[in-house]
Amino acid sequence: MDSAAQLAEIVRAVTNEAWDDVRAHIDGIDDAAVANVLEATPPRVRGELWLLLDVRRAAGVLHRLNEAARAEFVETMDAGQLAALADELDTDDLAFVLRRLPDAMTEALMEAMSAADRARVEAVLPYPEDTAGGIMNTDAVAVRPWHSIELVLRYLRRRQTLPDGTDNLFVVNAEGGYVGALPLARLLTADPSSAARDVMDTQVEAVPVSMGDALVARRFAEQDWVSAPVIDDAGALVGRITVDDVVDVIIEDADEALLAQAGLETDEETFTPVLISARRRAVWLGVNLITAFLAAAVINLFEETIAEVIALAVLMPIVASMGGIAGTQTLTLVIRGMALGQIASANLGWFLNRELLVAALNGLLWATLVALGAAVAFQDALLGCVIAAAMAINILVAAVSGSLLPSLLSALGIDPAIAGGVVLTTVTDVAGFFTFLGLATLAYG
Amino acid sequence: MDSAAQLAEIVRAVTNEAWDDVRAHIDGIDDAAVANVLEATPPRVRGELWLLLDVRRAAGVLHRLNEAARAEFVETMDAGQLAALADELDTDDLAFVLRRLPDAMTEALMEAMSAADRARVEAVLPYPEDTAGGIMNTDAVAVRPWHSIELVLRYLRRRQTLPDGTDNLFVVNAEGGYVGALPLARLLTADPSSAARDVMDTQVEAVPVSMGDALVARRFAEQDWVSAPVIDDAGALVGRITVDDVVDVIIEDADEALLAQAGLETDEETFTPVLISARRRAVWLGVNLITAFLAAAVINLFEETIAEVIALAVLMPIVASMGGIAGTQTLTLVIRGMALGQIASANLGWFLNRELLVAALNGLLWATLVALGAAVAFQDALLGCVIAAAMAINILVAAVSGSLLPSLLSALGIDPAIAGGVVLTTVTDVAGFFTFLGLATLAYG
Repeated sequence: MDSAAQLAEIVRAVTNEAWDDVRAHIDGIDDAAVANVLEATPPRVRGELWLLLDVRRAAGVLHRLNEAARAEFVETMDAGQLAALADELDTDDLAFVLRRLPDAMTEALMEAMSAADRARVEAVLPYPEDTAGGIMNTDAVAVRPWHSIELVLRYLRRRQTLPDGTDNLFVVNAEGGYVGALPLARLLTADPSSAARDVMDTQVEAVPVSMGDALVARRFAEQDWVSAPVIDDAGALVGRITVDDVVDVIIEDADEALLAQAGLETDEETFTPVLISARRRAVWLGVNLITAFLAAAVINLFEETIAEVIALAVLMPIVASMGGIAGTQTLTLVIRGMALGQIASANLGWFLNRELLVAALNGLLWATLVALGAAVAFQDALLGCVIAAAMAINILVAAVSGSLLPSLLSALGIDPAIAGGVVLTTVTDVAGFFTFLGLATLAYG
Repeated sequence: MDSAAQLAEIVRAVTNEAWDDVRAHIDGIDDAAVANVLEATPPRVRGELWLLLDVRRAAGVLHRLNEAARAEFVETMDAGQLAALADELDTDDLAFVLRRLPDAMTEALMEAMSAADRARVEAVLPYPEDTAGGIMNTDAVAVRPWHSIELVLRYLRRRQTLPDGTDNLFVVNAEGGYVGALPLARLLTADPSSAARDVMDTQVEAVPVSMGDALVARRFAEQDWVSAPVIDDAGALVGRITVDDVVDVIIEDADEALLAQAGLETDEETFTPVLISARRRAVWLGVNLITAFLAAAVINLFEETIAEVIALAVLMPIVASMGGIAGTQTLTLVIRGMALGQIASANLGWFLNRELLVAALNGLLWATLVALGAAVAFQDALLGCVIAAAMAINILVAAVSGSLLPSLLSALGIDPAIAGGVVLTTVTDVAGFFTFLGLATLAYG
């Protein structure tokens, strides 16, 4: 049964309050599917579904939920319940939970946890969430360079299990310093009498514990890593990052980029409570309203001209919106290029050059077509000339603003992914209205 | 040296035509970094840099480039050069290259390739690129259920190497049917006298060869897989997918989503040639122009009213743009929700309900504030009432359109991620202008 059908079944059972059916459905699907269902239902319903999960299930589902939903459920649990969960959670998920609890709860939970859980989470809590230290696990299996492969194999057989997603053991020297990685694949194919130092891979670069998570993700993607060792400033092995955590980072960052453009916050999910959602969106609407007022103020300067040539009121949104559309394309390319490390001050000049050429070509084309259309529709050749000039100018302005705004905003400490679109459309609206109505005032004045 | 600094160094050396320096820089950075540099330079420069790479380097770099750049370089090579590369490329990258060559070239290359390369690429060519079959490799290592662990270990030691990213061997029965996965971690910790069938993991579900790549990526992300077996309709093992390919799919899909909103095509890169870029953007500008004309036509209906109350021309963009902003937020959430499988017809009603509530709250708030502002600025209480009503209505219209458009567009076979924004702003612009100017005509008429 595909997920849309599953969802429909569960929704139907919930609406009919057939809780036995609901329980049966939930038991029949895996943790990831349950997480999906929880995210796809409004808070009231979701709360009921959560109560149907036992502790073990709850842990598996909790770590798969998006941030907002996770925080929501964590808030409903007491220290004892959380401590029971703690054992089932990976270190980074446990740290995530702890960071979001009110202080009193955090202390209570730390006390209720087992010593082992407490030790492993304390190893990562000092590091910010969006760094290598914040997404690593402390369960790396380490051996010494002088250990023979046969010794390592015997050790592993005694262990009976390896941590999830272990594709490398790590080789550390007597001081705990990281020296190389020992892939399981090599363990299986190497001569058992050779030493770890002869078999290990020294090319695998270690990730500094302070590296930003987006950069870590990029290294994983570029180098096709499955796991990577994490070292502190002294070069000592402190943990490992596995590709599944990196995949989560990539997905979350992509989500964030998509939402940011629309002014939605990163923990806005499908069913964020109405009041919280309304309040956040009110802020965004407010900011955009200010920019709309700026544009209105510009139009206001030319009231007389509009009164004289009413056709201007009909055509002015066309000029403004074309600039906004063209500028947004440039802006999107620049923001993406900067995120990929492909656009920096070194080649911004080349890029701007290219955007101006593209804008000139398009400006010429559309200015001409729109001018003809306007001149014919309003039987006014002068109007055609005015709108042609305004459109061409505005498309060029859009290319320049789109290219330069991100650097400018970054320099001011503002995230271009969030603010870029708003500022750009303000610029193109103001420039568009000003140019069009200004030229009209000169032409008809 | 970080990548921005590297890029700056190489750009400087290229501008000074200090080709020895350029070569030295390129030799000093890894394949992924070279790929980044190539993507960050205009076509002319990039072509010169490409010529500095030997065959082995070229293969490593080629597979790391984005689609557009890859296609560009492939076109510059002859069959002999491509055949030399073929040996170094993974099966899915080789298939990618073959698919994009002109037919004559494809035949020439197939003949020039080694028999082994030809066999492995022919195994995957039948499958569409955006399916499991299109991203899989055919180098899965398989064993029989009755083989003892000791036998498997001896076999691996004789092999001397395992394919990259192997974390599982796969267990197939005498007919070639997939029965389970044998994680390397288990191989190392299991009792050597046990049989593969006793140690293997039968919970790992196999991926059908026809499954879409986005869905494959989602399964990998949900289940934290590192590799997955691929089976055909008969249940026979035909290949395996590794997480690094899935990471590439996720990154490409995220890129596509970001670009689609701005009307940019998926293979638009930072330095797409000017003419190609201009032509594509011309199409997008043209489409948006049509929608702008629709809005202009609506304004045109009310020329007389605007002539009477010029303040309308000043305020009307505010009403339209607020609707567009609010509607875009709803639209973004719906498109994301649908992609995640969290919004389907089953819960769309709940979602619409929630969006209407949020819209009502915000509509009330901003309609009131804007009304007061307008009434004071223009000393006209009636104007305030008109704009209040129009804004409130338009924000509600935005919530409804944003919620329902994606399903409507999908049903018509149109991709909501591309067309959704354009259609939505058309609706909110037309509705905004019509409501505002229409109410004004009634009020002042």
